[in-house]
Amino acid sequence: MTDLKGIFTPNMVPLHSDGRINEGELRRYVDWLIDHGVHGLYPNGSSGEFLRFTAEERRLIVQVVCEQAAGRVPVLAGAAEANVSETIRACETYHGYGARAVAIVSPFYYKLSPESVYAYFKQIAQNTPIDVTLYNIPMFASPIDVPTIRRLVEFPRVVAMKDSSGDISFMLRVLAAVKPVRPEFAFLSGWEAALVPMLVMGADGGTNATSGVVPEFMRALYDLTVNNQLDEARTLQLRLLELFDAIVYAADFPEGLRAAVECRGFDMGPGRQPLSDTQQIDRAALQRVLQCIIADFGYTDAPTEGCPPRTGDTTRDRVAQIAQGVIEELKGRGVI
Amino acid sequence: MTDLKGIFTPNMVPLHSDGRINEGELRRYVDWLIDHGVHGLYPNGSSGEFLRFTAEERRLIVQVVCEQAAGRVPVLAGAAEANVSETIRACETYHGYGARAVAIVSPFYYKLSPESVYAYFKQIAQNTPIDVTLYNIPMFASPIDVPTIRRLVEFPRVVAMKDSSGDISFMLRVLAAVKPVRPEFAFLSGWEAALVPMLVMGADGGTNATSGVVPEFMRALYDLTVNNQLDEARTLQLRLLELFDAIVYAADFPEGLRAAVECRGFDMGPGRQPLSDTQQIDRAALQRVLQCIIADFGYTDAPTEGCPPRTGDTTRDRVAQIAQGVIEELKGRGVI
Amino acid sequence: MTDLKGIFTPNMVPLHSDGRINEGELRRYVDWLIDHGVHGLYPNGSSGEFLRFTAEERRLIVQVVCEQAAGRVPVLAGAAEANVSETIRACETYHGYGARAVAIVSPFYYKLSPESVYAYFKQIAQNTPIDVTLYNIPMFASPIDVPTIRRLVEFPRVVAMKDSSGDISFMLRVLAAVKPVRPEFAFLSGWEAALVPMLVMGADGGTNATSGVVPEFMRALYDLTVNNQLDEARTLQLRLLELFDAIVYAADFPEGLRAAVECRGFDMGPGRQPLSDTQQIDRAALQRVLQCIIADFGYTDAPTEGCPPRTGDTTRDRVAQIAQGVIEELKGRGVI
Amino acid sequence: MTDLKGIFTPNMVPLHSDGRINEGELRRYVDWLIDHGVHGLYPNGSSGEFLRFTAEERRLIVQVVCEQAAGRVPVLAGAAEANVSETIRACETYHGYGARAVAIVSPFYYKLSPESVYAYFKQIAQNTPIDVTLYNIPMFASPIDVPTIRRLVEFPRVVAMKDSSGDISFMLRVLAAVKPVRPEFAFLSGWEAALVPMLVMGADGGTNATSGVVPEFMRALYDLTVNNQLDEARTLQLRLLELFDAIVYAADFPEGLRAAVECRGFDMGPGRQPLSDTQQIDRAALQRVLQCIIADFGYTDAPTEGCPPRTGDTTRDRVAQIAQGVIEELKGRGVI
Repeated sequence: MTDLKGIFTPNMVPLHSDGRINEGELRRYVDWLIDHGVHGLYPNGSSGEFLRFTAEERRLIVQVVCEQAAGRVPVLAGAAEANVSETIRACETYHGYGARAVAIVSPFYYKLSPESVYAYFKQIAQNTPIDVTLYNIPMFASPIDVPTIRRLVEFPRVVAMKDSSGDISFMLRVLAAVKPVRPEFAFLSGWEAALVPMLVMGADGGTNATSGVVPEFMRALYDLTVNNQLDEARTLQLRLLELFDAIVYAADFPEGLRAAVECRGFDMGPGRQPLSDTQQIDRAALQRVLQCIIADFGYTDAPTEGCPPRTGDTTRDRVAQIAQGVIEELKGRGVI
Repeated sequence: MTDLKGIFTPNMVPLHSDGRINEGELRRYVDWLIDHGVHGLYPNGSSGEFLRFTAEERRLIVQVVCEQAAGRVPVLAGAAEANVSETIRACETYHGYGARAVAIVSPFYYKLSPESVYAYFKQIAQNTPIDVTLYNIPMFASPIDVPTIRRLVEFPRVVAMKDSSGDISFMLRVLAAVKPVRPEFAFLSGWEAALVPMLVMGADGGTNATSGVVPEFMRALYDLTVNNQLDEARTLQLRLLELFDAIVYAADFPEGLRAAVECRGFDMGPGRQPLSDTQQIDRAALQRVLQCIIADFGYTDAPTEGCPPRTGDTTRDRVAQIAQGVIEELKGRGVI
Repeated sequence: MTDLKGIFTPNMVPLHSDGRINEGELRRYVDWLIDHGVHGLYPNGSSGEFLRFTAEERRLIVQVVCEQAAGRVPVLAGAAEANVSETIRACETYHGYGARAVAIVSPFYYKLSPESVYAYFKQIAQNTPIDVTLYNIPMFASPIDVPTIRRLVEFPRVVAMKDSSGDISFMLRVLAAVKPVRPEFAFLSGWEAALVPMLVMGADGGTNATSGVVPEFMRALYDLTVNNQLDEARTLQLRLLELFDAIVYAADFPEGLRAAVECRGFDMGPGRQPLSDTQQIDRAALQRVLQCIIADFGYTDAPTEGCPPRTGDTTRDRVAQIAQGVIEELKGRGVI
Repeated sequence: MTDLKGIFTPNMVPLHSDGRINEGELRRYVDWLIDHGVHGLYPNGSSGEFLRFTAEERRLIVQVVCEQAAGRVPVLAGAAEANVSETIRACETYHGYGARAVAIVSPFYYKLSPESVYAYFKQIAQNTPIDVTLYNIPMFASPIDVPTIRRLVEFPRVVAMKDSSGDISFMLRVLAAVKPVRPEFAFLSGWEAALVPMLVMGADGGTNATSGVVPEFMRALYDLTVNNQLDEARTLQLRLLELFDAIVYAADFPEGLRAAVECRGFDMGPGRQPLSDTQQIDRAALQRVLQCIIADFGYTDAPTEGCPPRTGDTTRDRVAQIAQGVIEELKGRGVI
């Protein structure tokens, strides 16, 4: 019933070596994602480091993505700005750019009460010309709880939520509260470690960082699940875990994601958050691990120096690989 | 491949009004649970308030449950005692009583590191005459993480885990780490708010407090899910949420469970944790709500004073009902 | 040895009713704070809602505060921007405005590791023309831990830290790690609920929101403490708690602070975070309580409707007052 | 006004190599502690691993400590048992043994609401023949909040609280709430990292694990503080931090404490919580570090293999020392 379904990519933004946005590479990346099957794009999400760009840069990013998508897939544009007025202004601008909807993260930094979260989204919902997706990411921002969601879906402009809690019980409570009054409300899960069960239980899709790395795989996983081929979907879900964990936990998010996208042939440039010397060594080691994992998917070649054997114990293997890689790097640099 | 599958009830223990264990009512309850379809019993779990009994009482509880079950269903006996030696002694005793396996919660109070959790279970695993289920309940006890589980499944006596984290991503990581080396290892979920998706993704069963209240419903939900009737299972899962939330969140756990079991006709007696005057009023109100919910399932009559209309917004309805109930109670007592 | 000592006010920013910065009222407020004895000003802090202003507005705020202070007291300017380059640019600008130093909050939203926090501040410390204060507020931003602080004080530009953790053990660990190598390093506590003990144990001052409400009281508390009149200081510290708790906990921060500053005769205007209807009623009730507390200090008149008696049990009194106030408000509006 | 003041040692319990309580060594340890100046003893605390003993063992421990203290110092006996009835029975028993008061930790494992915490202590307070100390340790047990403390001090038997939160703001709120109605109520801090400031602000004493290691030092620190020699007290407080952090953070609590007590010449025996091979190596390394720190205090000799130089950066030194020690140990065992 909703058209906000399927796999939306919270795409990163390539940068030039001097830190400016690399517009050409961003356009090439958008084309590649669409060509590899994602259902939509989601600029200015957490993966896209919305917070590390200026307000002007965020507008540029949405403009470029909308232009390049050119209607081939819908664009869900992150529109959170410094305050309600600025956010509404961004909604208007992105509406003009042709975005399908905006996604607005709950207020962050201060830990706000549900009543404040409600007041914030209410004012936006009453003044936006474009549909709004509530973005719940309780590890980073004030949580949007079930009663607040229930109150907010009274506003027609609130048409969807993106949830990165990874909590399937929470999702079920949302569905129980919302579907009776708004059956077309879309629930998008931002936690791919649980994507298949979320889809099975009623999620309409996912906004998943890994779809920026292995879009064809994420599309296959989605298609298998909605076609009820659950045995195959379960197998893919388990394989996805290794990649997801390496991307999310082996470096401060989203640096691991940047390293992974580079494995697919994109020049992401240096991140806005500086890396220490130690981190740069770790990142090089992580990138080799990521290339091994992606090579296993068949989407790239293994690194020329080869990959260590995998034993099926993903946690220990990955740690071992990173450790080994760090040691080799240090040796190469003459440090040890 | 495992026989530790299906719905295990972490059964509560009825008490006399003077606080002693009501053995007769416990036996009657065991019979009722078995007659209503649960696959197994699980005395001395968190729901069963193992911590609030003395070591002697815990032994009595397992003895009575094993005797009364009399082989009709397997018994998974909570065996955590003050230290490793005492725990091993309990394992030996429960083995003698005919328990199928024991479940041992990770050390609690002190927050132990994974290495300590490993050392604790290793010593037990090497010295127990009975199969061991690892019991992970990170909200109450030191977490058992994936690498530690992977290390512990090297011991043949470690045959299963009960997980009450409610975290489906965690479960998938456990399955990815363990199944390649121990395909018969059983994963039992203790979080019924996510039971159906857990079962769909590979859990072998559930140890769910609500199965002590609506065993026939939990059995139906399990059967539908394993028979791949997912549309019906999803519907039941959503209905279950209201009951689960009322039991778990509307009073300090497990007092709401005690109140719910009473709705099925058992005399549970006073809990070991005293209730303040306010709490006794709240409990009476909660019990009426619980009776309404259980009446909706068709397992009991509605309270004679009737039930408020339900709007589908379970969160607010329940709160409203409790609030209304409290007000009526206070009026009845002449307080307001 | 440091000149960054004493009471710095993290001043709020008055707004016009249309949401724009009320520059005239801000200048009047700056004069009033200096006249009432604060040792310094701290625009663009958490109390000053730096996050809810645009980058341009933040620059305007610092410019106005520096101009108006006109060298009478030092200005510690919050300089955190979207990324390191923007933050360094702000450092340069605020240096030009005549700020004494900048304060830079640790990266927030993403939860960064100590290594990332180090890399972030290192790059700033190596490129700033103005002294830097590390701002640690672990409830809102990535924590700056003791080893990281120890590494960062290797850079001469890092001259101070503002700590809002409220954790006196942490402060002692910082002093133990830093003072041997940088005896002139300044430690400013942002948690006035523990200001006197912090000062006694070696803090150089405080950046305390309540000093924007009762500057003369905070100055007296500071003077008594550094003059070792500890009996009097202890008494004032206990009195301060009631005001602090009402400001911080009775509404989503910093709305209670805004209400309190209004009690001193400033027109703060509406906050950037909208308030729901319920919150507006609560705020009116809270403001009456705050006026009663401030009247007790002797700095304002009690509300014309009077104040409820105080029993010495601050927690319950305050709650009771707010509850009573809400009830009266609702009655006044005909709601109950 | 209270006699529950000064330094109370939450003493550990020496064990035989077979795990039984080493009563002789316990008596020797009690004598040594009293001879070295502690004001009281506190068996069955968290440091004393009350949870890892059986109910019978806990009784034996209190009996031995009371007998051996023989009135020389007051005994504050940990009396928490499986439920209220058992706890009251322990109160009666310990009263008979001659304990001055009991200390009762808030209910743990389940996270109880303030109302439940109140109901629990109320029933005890109304039925105990011996004075009660409320034991607040929110990292391990249900917190006892300020309003609950305020309600509980209505019972004359509630005469003190032991607080291990380390939160000086919390302590000030307790004093503000309690002292007006119960000026003789004793506040004992269980967090020695902040002991001096706690004493300065009104705490009556401390129940500090490190006083079981360096009792003479803790007594000196207490005496200096209450005699208002704050410069010297501050210096000692900073020195104490290194020892405290090594004891508490370098191994799972309280294993580091056991290792430290051994440095003073007591045979503590193996702990009840087993150690893995890795942990045993780490413990040997830690013990050498602890001996170096205690040797610096002048209370023992340095290890024969010497101590690494100290740079004043306690955090890094300690970690470096442990790392170095582990490496040497591994070399010694031929592992690397």
